[in-house]
Amino acid sequence: MNPINIAVLVSGQGRGTNLQAILDACANGRINGKVAVVIGVKDDAPAMQRARDQRIESVSVSPKDFSEDDYNEVLLSILRDFKIDLICLAGYMRKLGQKLIDTYRDRIMNVHPALIPSFAGHGMYGHHVHEAAIERGVKVSGATVQFVDEDYDTGPIIIQKIVPVLFDDTPDVLAARVLPEEHRAYVEAIQLFAQGRLRVEGRKVRILE
Amino acid sequence: MNPINIAVLVSGQGRGTNLQAILDACANGRINGKVAVVIGVKDDAPAMQRARDQRIESVSVSPKDFSEDDYNEVLLSILRDFKIDLICLAGYMRKLGQKLIDTYRDRIMNVHPALIPSFAGHGMYGHHVHEAAIERGVKVSGATVQFVDEDYDTGPIIIQKIVPVLFDDTPDVLAARVLPEEHRAYVEAIQLFAQGRLRVEGRKVRILE
Repeated sequence: MNPINIAVLVSGQGRGTNLQAILDACANGRINGKVAVVIGVKDDAPAMQRARDQRIESVSVSPKDFSEDDYNEVLLSILRDFKIDLICLAGYMRKLGQKLIDTYRDRIMNVHPALIPSFAGHGMYGHHVHEAAIERGVKVSGATVQFVDEDYDTGPIIIQKIVPVLFDDTPDVLAARVLPEEHRAYVEAIQLFAQGRLRVEGRKVRILE
Repeated sequence: MNPINIAVLVSGQGRGTNLQAILDACANGRINGKVAVVIGVKDDAPAMQRARDQRIESVSVSPKDFSEDDYNEVLLSILRDFKIDLICLAGYMRKLGQKLIDTYRDRIMNVHPALIPSFAGHGMYGHHVHEAAIERGVKVSGATVQFVDEDYDTGPIIIQKIVPVLFDDTPDVLAARVLPEEHRAYVEAIQLFAQGRLRVEGRKVRILE
């Protein structure tokens, strides 16, 4: 199959480690595809800098400069221009517009640092997730890659990876244990997509042999 | 340490496989304790029959015959009579009275056939749990042993075990995969208790070496 064109949508804050994991996997062949464009909300975000350093096309679109509809139209036109097959959210936190979600149905992925449906949904991002897991006293957590739908963390689940939670874990320690599993799960999920092996059936994802 | 006295509280319907797993583990030394009494809600429940077959003391107390307070007093007097150290719920679904919970704080365990907090809480028992997991399309589920507190599935978590969920799983198939992990987790948790190795700190359970 042809290599896929990936757009990675990044946040203003994140360090861009998920972006880097995807870039590395494209470079070493674990993903049959390339990051055609990194789309951010502001130029000086660490992930945007990372893209520029590695000579990956990057575009920042500030949502503040547009109406919600126009903002989504700008995103759509960028995605079209770069002939994007798959959108990967990497720390990107805004809700995408309905038209964009419809256009790229089952072609937008996200990774969540917990075992959805645990510690997921609106407001559950970054360290809030690990704080909640530790506060609840769970003995296992993990990472979930899912297709993005209209709501927060309700889309079809592609892959889940497990990590143990230890009694003395702080949110930082747990985050550091989960992060490599996020990267592993994301790369695997993207490669399965690139191989045409993901089939969404209702709310479930079948992985074809 | 001395062997502990265990009371197993069973339901009217369940087959009593968790009870059997505990009985077996007491018999073969994986639990340093004995089931001193099985308490049920009706004599003809399968789990009660199982207890009688194996010459385990059993008492049925029908909640219908008592006020809520009196029912709990009857349970308390049975638990006292048998010098119970640990109460294990095995399919038992009624909420226990506040006084009983206070008296046996951190000495009442339950096993839930999912990874709490996923697919847990009021109404989530038996096959409802596995139906919900399959409906959500999760890739992993498991079993959780927790101490019982005032609410449903909100107590301190002792052990969690993982099982994969496969695309074509029915609730029955998933239940059959989770059940041995419920037994394993329950036996391990009870033995840790018998060894004095469980310490509840806030909402978390520390397992001592």
